[in-house]
Amino acid sequence: MQIAVLLYDRFTALDAIGPFDTLGRLPDAEVVFVSERPGPVRTDNGALALVADKGLDEVTRPDIVVVPGGPHPELEMENAAVVDWLRAVDAATTWTTSVCTGSLLLAAAGLLKGRRAASHWLYLDRLPAFGAEPTGERVVYDGKYVTAAGVSSGIDMGLGLLGRIAGDAYAQTVQLMTEYDPQPPYDAGSPDKAPAEIVARLRAVNPPGAR
Amino acid sequence: MQIAVLLYDRFTALDAIGPFDTLGRLPDAEVVFVSERPGPVRTDNGALALVADKGLDEVTRPDIVVVPGGPHPELEMENAAVVDWLRAVDAATTWTTSVCTGSLLLAAAGLLKGRRAASHWLYLDRLPAFGAEPTGERVVYDGKYVTAAGVSSGIDMGLGLLGRIAGDAYAQTVQLMTEYDPQPPYDAGSPDKAPAEIVARLRAVNPPGAR
Repeated sequence: MQIAVLLYDRFTALDAIGPFDTLGRLPDAEVVFVSERPGPVRTDNGALALVADKGLDEVTRPDIVVVPGGPHPELEMENAAVVDWLRAVDAATTWTTSVCTGSLLLAAAGLLKGRRAASHWLYLDRLPAFGAEPTGERVVYDGKYVTAAGVSSGIDMGLGLLGRIAGDAYAQTVQLMTEYDPQPPYDAGSPDKAPAEIVARLRAVNPPGAR
Repeated sequence: MQIAVLLYDRFTALDAIGPFDTLGRLPDAEVVFVSERPGPVRTDNGALALVADKGLDEVTRPDIVVVPGGPHPELEMENAAVVDWLRAVDAATTWTTSVCTGSLLLAAAGLLKGRRAASHWLYLDRLPAFGAEPTGERVVYDGKYVTAAGVSSGIDMGLGLLGRIAGDAYAQTVQLMTEYDPQPPYDAGSPDKAPAEIVARLRAVNPPGAR
């Protein structure tokens, strides 16, 4: 079983690492970080690089693909090398997954046509242009396509998928080892729960349709 | 404001990335990943490398230090270069923090003497040998020392600390942007909540005192 995590310039680290430290604990799985060219790939704020050990041409038949998001998905949505690779490997995956705006890359590859999908709450409105139906759910399963909402939701997706593949007891073991018993100091993690003025301010910076 | 995140061989990625993508969003902060020698540092399962841009000798006065954990803390607890660096930079930090078994590195540096501290639940029993008082809490504040429990608790710590430094509204903004509205598919994230047989099996592999 091979799990390929796609990296690209200005991805968000937690989008990739949430699934990595949950789903990536699958027994006997090989996790491989892959990018257009192998080597260090910088995160959205530039403060960190993760190393992609393989280039796209070296990873041709992963069983699971994980596509993280980032604040500039449009750059990769227009990158034929990445979008073509997603379309090609998807033909043989058992699960094709994304976190955050990673679903926009899957959508741009034509993989979410007629499917329900999640994305970062500020980018949900971008999905219909690609024939996908946005939902406000945290993790959406539609056939072999699993899409998660913003950034941290990849942890919930990773554990859920781990349970489906390796069984509940194994997923619970990983949850316990990662001590995933969340106690957020605030209850502001979704646009329904956060103070209205914070939601409004973020929407003003990222207006629907302007991206 | 400089935030230094320590990397070392076989650290756990999520331990470092949880605080990075929360606390690291502090306005005007420079986040720097640092290790004994600059360059790629492999995670606990070897499947990923994060790049430490700086060596320990290049980061001498960080305002905040973040020490992630990993399954083999004893290797770094006996690494004088790391422990001496922690002790030296701690003299000028405003916050010295850890996630998971990272607290054992702080303890080995003598920084938690007489203080309450958290750690991964399987390693809490290691703290008293260094004069620290273990707690089962998820995030422990004792003066400028902030220690978090296992792996994923670094997200809760990062948001909490962000609130103390930059204010509640800013921390809530980061929580909303990372969509941290956890919906774990199981309720097995602490030894009190997980099925007893899973807890027992993990304790059998990692018996108290045997590490």
